[in-house]
Amino acid sequence: MRAMTNRAWKLVARPEGAFRPGDFEWFEEQLPPLADGQVLVRQIYLSLDPASRGWANPSASYLPPIPLGSVMRGFGLGCVEDSRHAGLKPGDFVQGLLGWQTHAVIDGQSVWRFERDPGIPLEAYLAVLGHIGATAYFGLLDIGKPRPGETLVVSGAAGAVGSLVGQIGRIVGCRVVGVAGSDEKCGWLTGDLGFDAAVNYKREPVLSRLRRLCPAGIDVHFENVGGQILDAALACLNTRARVVLCGLISQYNEVVPPPGPRFLGNVLMRRARIEGFLILDYENRYREAMGPLARWMAEGRLRYRTDIVEGLEQAPKAVNRLFDGANIGKLLVRVSDEPAP
Amino acid sequence: MRAMTNRAWKLVARPEGAFRPGDFEWFEEQLPPLADGQVLVRQIYLSLDPASRGWANPSASYLPPIPLGSVMRGFGLGCVEDSRHAGLKPGDFVQGLLGWQTHAVIDGQSVWRFERDPGIPLEAYLAVLGHIGATAYFGLLDIGKPRPGETLVVSGAAGAVGSLVGQIGRIVGCRVVGVAGSDEKCGWLTGDLGFDAAVNYKREPVLSRLRRLCPAGIDVHFENVGGQILDAALACLNTRARVVLCGLISQYNEVVPPPGPRFLGNVLMRRARIEGFLILDYENRYREAMGPLARWMAEGRLRYRTDIVEGLEQAPKAVNRLFDGANIGKLLVRVSDEPAP
Repeated sequence: MRAMTNRAWKLVARPEGAFRPGDFEWFEEQLPPLADGQVLVRQIYLSLDPASRGWANPSASYLPPIPLGSVMRGFGLGCVEDSRHAGLKPGDFVQGLLGWQTHAVIDGQSVWRFERDPGIPLEAYLAVLGHIGATAYFGLLDIGKPRPGETLVVSGAAGAVGSLVGQIGRIVGCRVVGVAGSDEKCGWLTGDLGFDAAVNYKREPVLSRLRRLCPAGIDVHFENVGGQILDAALACLNTRARVVLCGLISQYNEVVPPPGPRFLGNVLMRRARIEGFLILDYENRYREAMGPLARWMAEGRLRYRTDIVEGLEQAPKAVNRLFDGANIGKLLVRVSDEPAP
Repeated sequence: MRAMTNRAWKLVARPEGAFRPGDFEWFEEQLPPLADGQVLVRQIYLSLDPASRGWANPSASYLPPIPLGSVMRGFGLGCVEDSRHAGLKPGDFVQGLLGWQTHAVIDGQSVWRFERDPGIPLEAYLAVLGHIGATAYFGLLDIGKPRPGETLVVSGAAGAVGSLVGQIGRIVGCRVVGVAGSDEKCGWLTGDLGFDAAVNYKREPVLSRLRRLCPAGIDVHFENVGGQILDAALACLNTRARVVLCGLISQYNEVVPPPGPRFLGNVLMRRARIEGFLILDYENRYREAMGPLARWMAEGRLRYRTDIVEGLEQAPKAVNRLFDGANIGKLLVRVSDEPAP
């Protein structure tokens, strides 16, 4: 049965610092009829990602800024309810920028249909088997180029991307050290995910701990955080090291960007490379990653954890869990129930 | 006639900040007899390079630290006076790490013999046709990978390396903007060397000037300086821009490295790359560069300027000209006279 009403969060003010409740406004509206080529998608899981903070800024980044008064941008997964697009039919599962809303009327071309394996929980398609898995896979393997026996350090290691990066690093034969913000997170990394070591950056001096835990230096550093953690890693780089700049979450809430790493001199001395990375550039190579990721998951070598918030109403509050350290694993909002099998 | 006495500057204290006169001590000593495989080189020109400041630090970098009490490390050019090395004979011109001394007794394998073209001034072999030319050539072309029509920005643009980088950038079809520290330097870049524009960073706001002078963004940035100049360039990077980290002269005299660039976020957004570069890694490819460099010089498309200080006695004072902005072009010390042709 086709839904008649959409409920959504609109962005109505530009955040300064962290997202504030008043930056969003809840509204409900009648769903418009579909134009040619469009589909109606009922959203099941909305993904909350650190990138959303940058999208809310007034300045353009790799995507245009979200116009004030329009639905907050977000990646999500849902089920087609109605279609005027030849390639999609009701019941199909799709992913895409569905937005912070219960239903999206969207161009069929701008969503990605996927076959759901009934043995795999649906939320995995927004974690290992979606943009998060692809980010970890291509960021580490394509940009970081790890070799067996090398030392890999991952910051934001208990986050959705970081936890996969470390495990993929182990699979390709690296020694892996994670940096995370609590003993619980560090325990999960070394106890459950097979990281060789972990540093609690809130309790331990990162630079001296990294020096001790990486006696042969760092060959690949996968950066999700920025600030002093990045700086400590730069100080430990080996000759020809590769730094994957995937995220700088520590500074997304800053109005003026804070000063950057002091140890650029070591990047020069070590002939190292720092390279920015966005998964957007790999959209046409997603399928290349999904085979190995699904196989590693089936073999039990790649684990993930989801942190699911119930109800779209919670999104504005929940999104700040990404920035305050409360979140472990992939943060999702359950917007509606899965269809019965 | 074989010299009997060597005169030299030894490094006797670790500098804090800029080099101080007391960090060096003048001494004279009898030259030892040659061991098997060694040569005696009379130095003609000593090159003063920013890297020397890092070499004087107690911590190892890409070369071991200079032991206190030994001859100050430096690159130079000279003439073989005596040889117990099969590949070298008296009268040969060689380059290498001859040190801050009038004569070097040195392994024949660790110097590089070159054929002197009598039409070319000898000092050119420490500028365009030596390590400086090779640095500009490989740093720009191999790491920066400029394409015709792209925008290249060079910092330290009136320095030995920077002035060549900008001209090579023009030769390969880039629009070239230099950043330098005086109107005189800027006038030389645009008036004599063909740079499209120049910014005097001591008088003009670098970020807003770069935004204006690079309306299509920066595709290749060649960094010799670091600090706020690097930061301004990072803020203007284009998608897939390349940053060649060749030098960070603004911080070589700092005891604690200053905070780094704020605009790393733009490196991420633009999927740009920052890569450290040392000419040391290209030693076996030098000859590849010398052909094009000599041809461009002969065609008048590649100009250089030398800043020659008379007498080895002046070296400790002269070296700080590299850091205080006084120097334009390649800084050399004339240690002894060229042999009569």
